Amino acid sequence: MKLETPPGTRDFLPEEMVKRQEAIDKIRATFERYGFSPAETPAFEYAEVLEGKYGEEEKLIYRFEDMGGRKLALRYDLTVPLVRVVGMNQLPVPFKRYCISRVWRFDRPQKGRYREFWQCDVDTVGVPGMKADAEIIACAIDTLESLGLKGFKFKVNSRKVLDALMVSVGISKENELAVFRALDKLEKIGEDQVRKELDRIEKAKLDKLFEILSIKTIGEVEKKVGDTEGVKELKELFALLKLYKKSVVLDLAMVRGLDYYTGPIFEVELGSYGSIAGGGRYDKLIGQLSGKEMPAVGISLGIERIIEVMREQGLLTDKKTVTRVFVLRADEESEGVTLQILTELRAAGINSEADLLGRNFSNQMSYANRLGVEKVVIVGQKDLKDGKITVKDMKTGEQKAVDKGKIIEALKIK
Amino acid sequence: MKLETPPGTRDFLPEEMVKRQEAIDKIRATFERYGFSPAETPAFEYAEVLEGKYGEEEKLIYRFEDMGGRKLALRYDLTVPLVRVVGMNQLPVPFKRYCISRVWRFDRPQKGRYREFWQCDVDTVGVPGMKADAEIIACAIDTLESLGLKGFKFKVNSRKVLDALMVSVGISKENELAVFRALDKLEKIGEDQVRKELDRIEKAKLDKLFEILSIKTIGEVEKKVGDTEGVKELKELFALLKLYKKSVVLDLAMVRGLDYYTGPIFEVELGSYGSIAGGGRYDKLIGQLSGKEMPAVGISLGIERIIEVMREQGLLTDKKTVTRVFVLRADEESEGVTLQILTELRAAGINSEADLLGRNFSNQMSYANRLGVEKVVIVGQKDLKDGKITVKDMKTGEQKAVDKGKIIEALKIK
Repeated sequence: MKLETPPGTRDFLPEEMVKRQEAIDKIRATFERYGFSPAETPAFEYAEVLEGKYGEEEKLIYRFEDMGGRKLALRYDLTVPLVRVVGMNQLPVPFKRYCISRVWRFDRPQKGRYREFWQCDVDTVGVPGMKADAEIIACAIDTLESLGLKGFKFKVNSRKVLDALMVSVGISKENELAVFRALDKLEKIGEDQVRKELDRIEKAKLDKLFEILSIKTIGEVEKKVGDTEGVKELKELFALLKLYKKSVVLDLAMVRGLDYYTGPIFEVELGSYGSIAGGGRYDKLIGQLSGKEMPAVGISLGIERIIEVMREQGLLTDKKTVTRVFVLRADEESEGVTLQILTELRAAGINSEADLLGRNFSNQMSYANRLGVEKVVIVGQKDLKDGKITVKDMKTGEQKAVDKGKIIEALKIK
Repeated sequence: MKLETPPGTRDFLPEEMVKRQEAIDKIRATFERYGFSPAETPAFEYAEVLEGKYGEEEKLIYRFEDMGGRKLALRYDLTVPLVRVVGMNQLPVPFKRYCISRVWRFDRPQKGRYREFWQCDVDTVGVPGMKADAEIIACAIDTLESLGLKGFKFKVNSRKVLDALMVSVGISKENELAVFRALDKLEKIGEDQVRKELDRIEKAKLDKLFEILSIKTIGEVEKKVGDTEGVKELKELFALLKLYKKSVVLDLAMVRGLDYYTGPIFEVELGSYGSIAGGGRYDKLIGQLSGKEMPAVGISLGIERIIEVMREQGLLTDKKTVTRVFVLRADEESEGVTLQILTELRAAGINSEADLLGRNFSNQMSYANRLGVEKVVIVGQKDLKDGKITVKDMKTGEQKAVDKGKIIEALKIK
């Protein structure tokens, strides 16, 4: 029998899962602090729900046929299923939801690229104005900071501003998407390569384009294209972010690959790690799918990359299990009391374990060591005669006998 | 475009998801208190990993072919993937893991039966003795109690005891599995129907079988079959559960459908709701799959049914969102302070929202009402002149002005 997982998929053993779980719990807590509530959708959709949404990336949709011959697909992201949900239901607005869940892409598996991975999304549906965008950005920045990440750059741009810039440079509507897609690769492939991809466009226009792309303030942009809708939006957004005390940078060269963005777009870059989050406003997508016009904005955190960055920066917990205390039975006679103490600790909400294999003292101690518990409670007849139990601090090695009835306080856990 | 989910799958909107999430958080907390750590496996496996494990139910495996022509299947349960993980890895024992995650079955969708649903499993691998079984049972009972469930019956039986009983009744090894499968349906279809299914077996034997099945104590069983291994195990298990102060009942007619159990088996019955959890010891399955002999025991909570029971018994939270406080902007001029207060609350870990749509006072209040928040903080120029802010308790309707700097204490949240 094949003792392996299908290509591009992984098991997460407890040692890894405890780290992921702690990071995800922090992300979830921040999302909830901002008033986003959880929602879930099925792992798979009718394939047609996903088709025509992802531009060039559509080829990565993980398609399959069910045993009833239905054409289905594992969800490619968490945004399009949300759009379907909004289209299907009469939801009160603003509809603020988060989702931390799996997605699938039929990609060539390679280092850091999987067929099954997790995404963390927050979206606000039903708000046309910039207040929703500002809140999403503030939430994303707080989330990344709650994980201990530092030195990331929150880049903001606007599809509307980009459109206006294209007009001012003289790039035709037909060429616009090609320009966006080429620019999306700018950091990866460099300016020369982008120019090569766009060689159908006159050099003078490309020169002008690259000159404009280096503009760093919305004031400068306004001078080029006037006080257009896109410029007004970004000015309002930046003003709100000032109130939130969150700093972002305008990056006109950041365009985001997906076709469906209509307003502000976001990307978080972390030095050499590249992009760790991305999103933007998509005011047309829900209407396109369901005929029901509905503005929306959201961001997706790339949890897989974020966890790798956290690992390299030593930000993940060093816990290997959830267990914090091991209750050690020093002799056969103390079996009953051991179980009683164990039950007491658990009832007090302390994650605890005791021996299940009839191991002797030193084997129990090495098991506790391997678990990486904070404290070991040693239950033995010698101590019990005086109504005592020994508590050992596994970090300092310190050991002291305490009253059997005061074990919870003595542990100083939580 | 099809605005629907594929058959047998569901969306969970926030109002429902908040309830599910709270229940799942409680389950997870209890699992962790018992020292079980989280682990995850991919949504799908090579089909052959799942084949030959589920007896008659194998026809429900959700098979599909990936775009590379691989024969895959969405996981049918959380146990067989765990068995694969143990087979693939050199894991230190005891290996105690929990998993709360999706599974899929290609079943005919109907009320309460889905193609995609969630399971909550705890398993202990590598412990041959009854200590692991007792701990799993205690953990399951604590988990159900933590959800507020009452009146459930934790039924225990043993495949080894059943085997010995079959011998004592004179039922041949070949007929044993058929008898188990028929007995599994006893509560659903009744004794007459079971007898009909087993009409190849002489009436005298069936009479004797049904007489034995009504035995209620392990002492009586011992009189019938002697102090066999199965009897010894159950006696030890019951003694341990006494130390855990957990009460279970011996039910010889409870056999569990799955073929792979080898020792004690468990089922939790809740009145007319039927079975809400099930499990047992499966000492051969890991060896069968991987050639590596390894004892194991586990239980699976049927979270979908448990949530339905909790709903009917009024045990689910009445929260509709995660948001606990709404910060209301009483006038245009207070926009900035509103955002400042909102940020303060969020920094204090209080899930909060404010208006995103430029709504007036009464529309903000009805939105807050619909959200079901506990408190509304009203920020207006009139109060602010005196350095005050008004806090409204949405349950009592009580309202009072408090110092702007003391808003967190005044809210008495958490």
